Amino acid sequence: MIKDRTKAEVNFKIRGVYTDWVTNNIRYSDLDPNGHVNNGAINAFFEDGRVQFRADHLSGYSEDILAGFVLVKFSVEYLRALKYPGSVEVGTLVLNIGRTSYLLKQGLFCDNECMASAEVVTVCFNKETQRAELIDDDLREILEKAQK
Amino acid sequence: MIKDRTKAEVNFKIRGVYTDWVTNNIRYSDLDPNGHVNNGAINAFFEDGRVQFRADHLSGYSEDILAGFVLVKFSVEYLRALKYPGSVEVGTLVLNIGRTSYLLKQGLFCDNECMASAEVVTVCFNKETQRAELIDDDLREILEKAQK
Amino acid sequence: MIKDRTKAEVNFKIRGVYTDWVTNNIRYSDLDPNGHVNNGAINAFFEDGRVQFRADHLSGYSEDILAGFVLVKFSVEYLRALKYPGSVEVGTLVLNIGRTSYLLKQGLFCDNECMASAEVVTVCFNKETQRAELIDDDLREILEKAQK
Amino acid sequence: MIKDRTKAEVNFKIRGVYTDWVTNNIRYSDLDPNGHVNNGAINAFFEDGRVQFRADHLSGYSEDILAGFVLVKFSVEYLRALKYPGSVEVGTLVLNIGRTSYLLKQGLFCDNECMASAEVVTVCFNKETQRAELIDDDLREILEKAQK
Repeated sequence: MIKDRTKAEVNFKIRGVYTDWVTNNIRYSDLDPNGHVNNGAINAFFEDGRVQFRADHLSGYSEDILAGFVLVKFSVEYLRALKYPGSVEVGTLVLNIGRTSYLLKQGLFCDNECMASAEVVTVCFNKETQRAELIDDDLREILEKAQK
Repeated sequence: MIKDRTKAEVNFKIRGVYTDWVTNNIRYSDLDPNGHVNNGAINAFFEDGRVQFRADHLSGYSEDILAGFVLVKFSVEYLRALKYPGSVEVGTLVLNIGRTSYLLKQGLFCDNECMASAEVVTVCFNKETQRAELIDDDLREILEKAQK
Repeated sequence: MIKDRTKAEVNFKIRGVYTDWVTNNIRYSDLDPNGHVNNGAINAFFEDGRVQFRADHLSGYSEDILAGFVLVKFSVEYLRALKYPGSVEVGTLVLNIGRTSYLLKQGLFCDNECMASAEVVTVCFNKETQRAELIDDDLREILEKAQK
Repeated sequence: MIKDRTKAEVNFKIRGVYTDWVTNNIRYSDLDPNGHVNNGAINAFFEDGRVQFRADHLSGYSEDILAGFVLVKFSVEYLRALKYPGSVEVGTLVLNIGRTSYLLKQGLFCDNECMASAEVVTVCFNKETQRAELIDDDLREILEKAQK
């Protein structure tokens, strides 16, 4: 777990920072006219990391692991161009747990090189009231445990 | 409506053959390393034509217009390369209504030029028995009406 | 053109802020298991807005309008879920012109409602030296003109 | 190699038929509103099988392994719904070598179960004359060797 006071100093381009991992393949259809992997594919790799994170940690919390959460902000830095064919690994980390939202940090790696990093804000959302909800104790405990 | 005996002579590369139409945009992310629109995008345009066909004709038949049908065969001829930016129009036609399945014919056009054509077999499927089902009278009437 | 001192007060959820526009269609294949348009499609709509911006303003600057630039940061806020079928309009604005990079602001609208907004940093990049390059006078003039 | 006279009897739903293989991951963004992997993803898996086939067999034939060929017909049978998460294996086989075109057969498997199969016609194409070209001896030899 990364302590609050040290977060600013953390190097998110290093694999060891992340707690959860998925592997994915680059597809030929991911290539753009420059022969580079397009940003849409990179964003989809990050999405897979988050879906797997929820499957691994939140399946006991609610039956439908995707309901009750809304992704409200996604921010990505593209560091290096990806090439086809190849595979990528995406690491995910719970960086912050707020009142109604939590912040994930993600890194996309080829071998040990960080090719892109992302920050994602997810809000707990009540479909009926259409409003943000407080993160309850169960969820907070799950997210805190995932940080270790 | 195209009579059975004349089907073999029909030119499916002509717009007038088709009864139902949708328009779609080409996206930059559809381009492949050759600068052509990839086949995946072309197939997605045909899919949109079918979804719209069902929305227009089958919404009164069942609440969930997509349940109860399974696409089992998709066959496409790519005639000309598509370019970005641009838009395409997809025409759809009910070509044949069988016992448990129906056959759609589709054409993709830029202006008046046919860029690709497709044939699609959809089977009526019972989720519970996991078996093909007879096309009932209501559905047959709807499909026959769509041919005109 | 938005003056520097007033940028903090600008409401980027209003159509009138943006100078350049593209229209796009939502596809059935953009839908995720929740029946919402997935974020990948939304990001592709923003990408189309940027490609069109370059085609409209930078075609006279260099033959290959995509060479020489690298998107290094993409940040998006998802405000409302998009639904299928439908179309979206993406507005683009040059918000800032720096030494080696420029900042675009983008808004995605359905009718007059802002569904998502994005910020994009593009760097001028020399392929041979693999380093960022100063924005030259020609490019600066083009970008400044585009702001009006 | 499959002899011509026995082709009609071959079971293309068995892994042992295919000579060339690639593995691919299903992505969350491949899911449609029914929670099934959409056909577009399945078609992209087949495409990756073909690109890999060309990389493995045709890299010595011409520098740009994708130039000089045009996919003119793609036909796919969808046998079973794919689920997320998971991976697929695509097998490819040169089934026929004609005068100006060759026919690939492809099978998509999860474990030992065939989920979809495809037939693909690729034509040798001269970009300058914009016409089909005869398959030359070198290419014929490569394709024949790949059948074994």
